Amino acid sequence: MKKINVGLVGFGTVGSGVVEVLQAQKKVLKNLTGLDIDLKYICDKDITSNRGIKVNKRVLTKDLKKVLNNSEIDIVVELIGGIHPANEIILAALKNKKHVVTANKALLAENGSEIFRTAKMSKREVRFEGSVGAGIPIIKALREGFAANKITAIYGIINGTSNYILSRMSDEGCTFGFALKAAKKMGVAEANPRLDINGADSAHKLILLTELSFGVSAKMRQVYCEGILAIEPRDIKYAREMGYAIKLLGVAKRSGNKVEVRVHPTLVPVSHLLANVKGVYNAIYVKGDLIGETLLYGEGAGKYPTASAVVSDIIDLAKLIGEGNAPQTAMLKATHSPILTIRKMEETKCRYYIRFSAVDKPGVLASISGILAKSDISISHVTQKEQHREKVVPIVMMTHLAQERNLRKALKLIDKLPAIKKKTVAVRMESL
Amino acid sequence: MKKINVGLVGFGTVGSGVVEVLQAQKKVLKNLTGLDIDLKYICDKDITSNRGIKVNKRVLTKDLKKVLNNSEIDIVVELIGGIHPANEIILAALKNKKHVVTANKALLAENGSEIFRTAKMSKREVRFEGSVGAGIPIIKALREGFAANKITAIYGIINGTSNYILSRMSDEGCTFGFALKAAKKMGVAEANPRLDINGADSAHKLILLTELSFGVSAKMRQVYCEGILAIEPRDIKYAREMGYAIKLLGVAKRSGNKVEVRVHPTLVPVSHLLANVKGVYNAIYVKGDLIGETLLYGEGAGKYPTASAVVSDIIDLAKLIGEGNAPQTAMLKATHSPILTIRKMEETKCRYYIRFSAVDKPGVLASISGILAKSDISISHVTQKEQHREKVVPIVMMTHLAQERNLRKALKLIDKLPAIKKKTVAVRMESL
Repeated sequence: MKKINVGLVGFGTVGSGVVEVLQAQKKVLKNLTGLDIDLKYICDKDITSNRGIKVNKRVLTKDLKKVLNNSEIDIVVELIGGIHPANEIILAALKNKKHVVTANKALLAENGSEIFRTAKMSKREVRFEGSVGAGIPIIKALREGFAANKITAIYGIINGTSNYILSRMSDEGCTFGFALKAAKKMGVAEANPRLDINGADSAHKLILLTELSFGVSAKMRQVYCEGILAIEPRDIKYAREMGYAIKLLGVAKRSGNKVEVRVHPTLVPVSHLLANVKGVYNAIYVKGDLIGETLLYGEGAGKYPTASAVVSDIIDLAKLIGEGNAPQTAMLKATHSPILTIRKMEETKCRYYIRFSAVDKPGVLASISGILAKSDISISHVTQKEQHREKVVPIVMMTHLAQERNLRKALKLIDKLPAIKKKTVAVRMESL
Repeated sequence: MKKINVGLVGFGTVGSGVVEVLQAQKKVLKNLTGLDIDLKYICDKDITSNRGIKVNKRVLTKDLKKVLNNSEIDIVVELIGGIHPANEIILAALKNKKHVVTANKALLAENGSEIFRTAKMSKREVRFEGSVGAGIPIIKALREGFAANKITAIYGIINGTSNYILSRMSDEGCTFGFALKAAKKMGVAEANPRLDINGADSAHKLILLTELSFGVSAKMRQVYCEGILAIEPRDIKYAREMGYAIKLLGVAKRSGNKVEVRVHPTLVPVSHLLANVKGVYNAIYVKGDLIGETLLYGEGAGKYPTASAVVSDIIDLAKLIGEGNAPQTAMLKATHSPILTIRKMEETKCRYYIRFSAVDKPGVLASISGILAKSDISISHVTQKEQHREKVVPIVMMTHLAQERNLRKALKLIDKLPAIKKKTVAVRMESL
């Protein structure tokens, strides 16, 4: 019987999860694929630390070449993350005629085009189910399950750390700083959570979802990216009073021949399923012309959910290798869309939640609403919040659809008014 | 270039959706599969009615043999539904070396074993993504996406009609009868909605999910099946007061070497995503050892969502045929479970919501709770509802985990008490 030899690079949390599953489920995987899936090498800088699993010592190596240059290895699993040396490892593996499984969203978002070009030249496949939403089979759903659909929009809660922080702030009324500390304590935020909190991790994943849905490969600089740092407990409270939750969403939405690709905190109706996605969970809401509205939900990170995705990729590849199939050498084989371009953020239209911090004096509301009116921004709701101890009062507005460019201009003008005492907060809304 | 010839049997709502998609997306399908997918025949008793799409007349036929005996046809798509003659058509197609795509849950639940045995003998594949949850890719998720997991439980809202009726009852406080009428008016319930309302349709789908998750093929008579007919508006109201919604769930849950397979109205915590699945939408909540908790949500029926699933199956099969792959001739290739058997309903344990209709006299509560205590059923919550106009008052209880057998015995005894004026209502609860 033919064997499939796997070389794993990166024996960290997810890597050891993958090793554990491959070892424990050897028989099931054989029944599923008709093949023995053998873990030939595990390569890591550290091959001595205890990962809580038994591994044959001959399998462990620090020498990348043993994996990359070994002609017996069919699949290289890259789980070290980050751009370098992951990029070089994947490219070398492909050039050496190995299929690749990775969960590296940052790398695929940054350098996917070179990687898939190399895959094409080598006639090898790159699988990446673990790169978005961990165990949620969103990549497979977009590539296969929804293949007959023209996708019209994707809204994703695709960063567990941010969602955990916003959930704590929402449930407990605590500040961002307090919730972040709690998240670190719970192991839900990394020591340096910058990429999670500033939206970059969501943007990486959104770039992959955008390519899979619309055939557009966006660069990071083309993705508007705003994190959750500016969200205050009171914004969450005011939003809830009006029937909204605040979520960090990745939005990819088609209108005409343009696609909007943006990551930002978003007001979502509380009755919507996305508003009910709590804690570290992820969810991707997909709209298509045939399926209508769907949602895939699950743990978006972690050792075992990600290992589940990685092993599902290995299983798919093993079947493919066993049956001598033609590989899928592009991220997406075909798209229903014509060639789309990315809409500039200034040209997008949204509804906005706006909180002004104004001195409680006559005429302030008139000045603000005058500037908004001149900027073609029409107001759907206003509340001036009574504040007994402060001289500066919050004025909360919700707008009708307005253009981003107009909004930015208006807020610039408004923030120069002497009555405005703090930078105005604006959060986009999606009716979904 | 090799062509894939498709023969469609059943030119009804879903059938015409499939034809529409195959025609409109011909080019995309070619890019996806590398093959021309040709609709060779459309077979139906009625080939004259206007379906709102242009079809070449030479493609239309009333003659099944043209499809089943035509050696050029690679894939037969069965969309007539029901047991006969769908069963005979699928078996004949497989015997004649054609792959089969179907959305026929009733047939696969009733006769899946013969169908997959026949597929195995003929080395052909049966695909059935449309049979559960329409456009929701739950079959693919269980067979491929979650392949590395031991599934531990599945909870599904898998009948749109029932969920629509319960949602209306819940939102408007209306009766079952009123909501059913509304559902018929909206086209959400069929003229004869018996199988939707009595849980049988959910049971059919649950049988497929159970086999895919646990490798157990359950017979209809082994599935406990209770519909939504007995649910009264006040049960929904009382449940909500205690923090629960009532949903018709299909439950397949492993404990030890047994699996519970049951369909019944269920109290679900309002904070759970399943409680927030409204209207005709379906959702399947899957628990696995690696993925943890996931949910797939979407439109569970209808022309285009089902067509989306059917065409995704055709695409998968076309790739398989094009690449000369070994087909998957079983519903499930391998399972992580040992051989499981189905737990008898009497042996299952649940928490229960119970509503007694009792005369408002001293000693009634004592008699009821005495019988429950003797039956080893412990009460976690009691409310006696004040009723100003009625002499019969509702007493609402929630129990701790209790065995079904004990509960049935206890209710039989209680319903014989002179103070009990109507049959007691019991609804199972799941903490999920």
